[in-house]
Amino acid sequence: MKRLFIHATILTMKDGEKPLTNAALAVENDRITYVGPVPEDRSGYDEVIDMSGHAILPGWVNTHGHAAMSLLRGYGDDLPLKTWLEEKMWPMEARFGPEQVRWGTALTVLEMIKGGTTCFLDMYDHMDQVAEVVVEAGIRARLCRGAIGLCSEEEQVAKWKEAVQFARDWHNQADGRITTMMAPHAPYTCSPDFIRRFVESAAEYQLPIHTHMSETAAEVQQNVDQYGVRPVEHLDKLGVFDLPCLVAHAVHLTDDEIALLAEKDVKVSHNPGSNLKLGSGIAPIAKMLAHGMRPSLGTDGPASNNNVDMLEEIRLAALIHKGANEDPLAVTADVALRMGTIYGAEALFLDREIGTLEPGKKADFITVELRQAHLQPLHDVESHLAYAAVSTDVRDVYVDGRPIMKDRECLTLDEERIIYEANRAFQAIAP
Amino acid sequence: MKRLFIHATILTMKDGEKPLTNAALAVENDRITYVGPVPEDRSGYDEVIDMSGHAILPGWVNTHGHAAMSLLRGYGDDLPLKTWLEEKMWPMEARFGPEQVRWGTALTVLEMIKGGTTCFLDMYDHMDQVAEVVVEAGIRARLCRGAIGLCSEEEQVAKWKEAVQFARDWHNQADGRITTMMAPHAPYTCSPDFIRRFVESAAEYQLPIHTHMSETAAEVQQNVDQYGVRPVEHLDKLGVFDLPCLVAHAVHLTDDEIALLAEKDVKVSHNPGSNLKLGSGIAPIAKMLAHGMRPSLGTDGPASNNNVDMLEEIRLAALIHKGANEDPLAVTADVALRMGTIYGAEALFLDREIGTLEPGKKADFITVELRQAHLQPLHDVESHLAYAAVSTDVRDVYVDGRPIMKDRECLTLDEERIIYEANRAFQAIAP
Ligand SMILES: [Zn+2]
Ligand SMILES: [Zn+2]
Repeated sequence: MKRLFIHATILTMKDGEKPLTNAALAVENDRITYVGPVPEDRSGYDEVIDMSGHAILPGWVNTHGHAAMSLLRGYGDDLPLKTWLEEKMWPMEARFGPEQVRWGTALTVLEMIKGGTTCFLDMYDHMDQVAEVVVEAGIRARLCRGAIGLCSEEEQVAKWKEAVQFARDWHNQADGRITTMMAPHAPYTCSPDFIRRFVESAAEYQLPIHTHMSETAAEVQQNVDQYGVRPVEHLDKLGVFDLPCLVAHAVHLTDDEIALLAEKDVKVSHNPGSNLKLGSGIAPIAKMLAHGMRPSLGTDGPASNNNVDMLEEIRLAALIHKGANEDPLAVTADVALRMGTIYGAEALFLDREIGTLEPGKKADFITVELRQAHLQPLHDVESHLAYAAVSTDVRDVYVDGRPIMKDRECLTLDEERIIYEANRAFQAIAP
Repeated sequence: MKRLFIHATILTMKDGEKPLTNAALAVENDRITYVGPVPEDRSGYDEVIDMSGHAILPGWVNTHGHAAMSLLRGYGDDLPLKTWLEEKMWPMEARFGPEQVRWGTALTVLEMIKGGTTCFLDMYDHMDQVAEVVVEAGIRARLCRGAIGLCSEEEQVAKWKEAVQFARDWHNQADGRITTMMAPHAPYTCSPDFIRRFVESAAEYQLPIHTHMSETAAEVQQNVDQYGVRPVEHLDKLGVFDLPCLVAHAVHLTDDEIALLAEKDVKVSHNPGSNLKLGSGIAPIAKMLAHGMRPSLGTDGPASNNNVDMLEEIRLAALIHKGANEDPLAVTADVALRMGTIYGAEALFLDREIGTLEPGKKADFITVELRQAHLQPLHDVESHLAYAAVSTDVRDVYVDGRPIMKDRECLTLDEERIIYEANRAFQAIAP
């Protein structure tokens, strides 16, 4: 299948490259074969699509989340963090079985596709269900069984084995759309020994590591009380940063810690919506950028966000650091868009395949309708996407060159059924 | 004309009132006549509308902006504030004539209606043009000729007279949908004598006062250097707070200043998007709420936002104060929604007519489609509106009981023509 998209505004997201106007993108099966001026000769294509009035750019890459938690969206909001977790989230999550994970994940994946996300990371339980939703949806994902070690030695071993088994079973499945990781949940929920097991398995199977780190001030203090060091030094001593590693949150960091993360090339998933909503704080993204780091963006679970709208995370990243630092240049529009695309691909160690539009890469991209009141006059498409667009401006979504949403209709998932089943799965465990 | 809306989730926005499920709203001509359980007897209505799966709530009230500046949306973004103002905004605004104001305003009003705003404040120049757009659009507005006093005494007098003339000509026009105000631009652009003229005229014609105040740290310092006091004390001494008064921004305030504003019942327009984007800072909204103040929300001009999406301002207000204060209860969902509705009506001194849904008030309301993936499961509609919805979830918009948008089509304005004319008006002044 050879498709040619013409007369588009194309944002390749390559470093330093500005948007191309009246440009063309060619795709052969699952790969991009051409980006540039509209070719004179358009024969040899199965489909030639006029994209006048539209932008084409890489799909969003969501680098941290727990998709199944959509079932708890808005369940017990506006409570202190401890009450919310201990009285609302944990008791309900304890009742989650495969059905809840399947339909909660399907609901989130549907929402992600409708908002232009083409690749996401998921860290949860019952991960076979998540992988099956990914297969069906046609989206791309980095998946990991998130393991909380606050249990008996026997249960810990079972979780670790399950995490390894899942990672081995599913790595490079679904035509390579699924890759995996090893994910000890967090330093405050996993003992050093438990984390070490995951580091060893990650090294053995050549998989990256993913974990939560330094999300709240309280958690950093707890690490100091328990282990005598802050989480960054703690994880560094456990060898976590000697392997390819992505940490979520990284809100409470010292300057020395930022320097260490930069030096060790640790990837960061910045989750502004979740960090704000839970009152965790504002991550030092401007400092990370100044250290040459390329932080990515994640939504976190829908229960703490409360959506999986990556354009909203891009907007928040572009805005909040300007305000918090009283610096209108803290995170510019083009950097915010790159955080949502190529920096995300780098954070998932998938940047050789996705994250920019260039020949040889996978054809994971979205189209955005520009002919709308809130995007006029069209001075600067990067600015309009970062500061003015809404997620419903995304019209089409392609993954591996295959359309999975066209004109806002998801082609791979049954929207009505998923909404019905997600509500049913929630009711089945509701108190 | 008598309309009955049934089977809706109704958010009245009255203090302490939670959403009503499976409820009804009755409207006769321009007024609400009933809110409550679905009545058995539905005879006597010209139209009975089934709103199953939808919410009905008061339209958003946008309490600060400069609508015509949409022509400069994204024009010279991501620059230091001084460069942006002096090299981009001011030279272009100097070229604005009636055509630019008309079509820039029409573009913004169209965008506001599509996002569910039913009432807005506008402070700009060529205000007759703005008023005529309001008449045509069927929206409600508080309008004021914003006067910058950085000019000769003669020009100052001309601007003041023009502001008074406009306020007198248009107050209570368009079936009462247009009301006016007196608006000296800001303490740093208006001399004390110039501000005094506006205070005297506001008292004479019984109009409220609107001005910018304490937006940036630099401006507060300049006030101290020039007048020996900070802007709050300065305006208080000029008698501004002895009249009904609304100040925009109020970012840089001491605790004593917040106490004074609370004591004098000064209304505040919080503009989180603009304050963040321009790097002005984060207003002390949590403290204002603790002092019993009821801050409202504004988008500011589209050139510093870069849209007029009130749901985005509600989202930002609900999120950023939690993050900045590391307190997940700083601004709750229900308070954020009230900031966008009833607190806005209060800020514009229109709360006897609009801002809540109750019998006797004007029928200014919006409907929101709830049957969508990103709003499932529907645990808590206030939470979902504040944290998860997008502006395009708004389906219908009514002002004075008249539908001005139905199923996302604006019935009063010609979308294609406005987009065409706004681009033409921009091109006519582009360098
Ligand atoms: Zn997480
Ligand atoms: Zn303003």
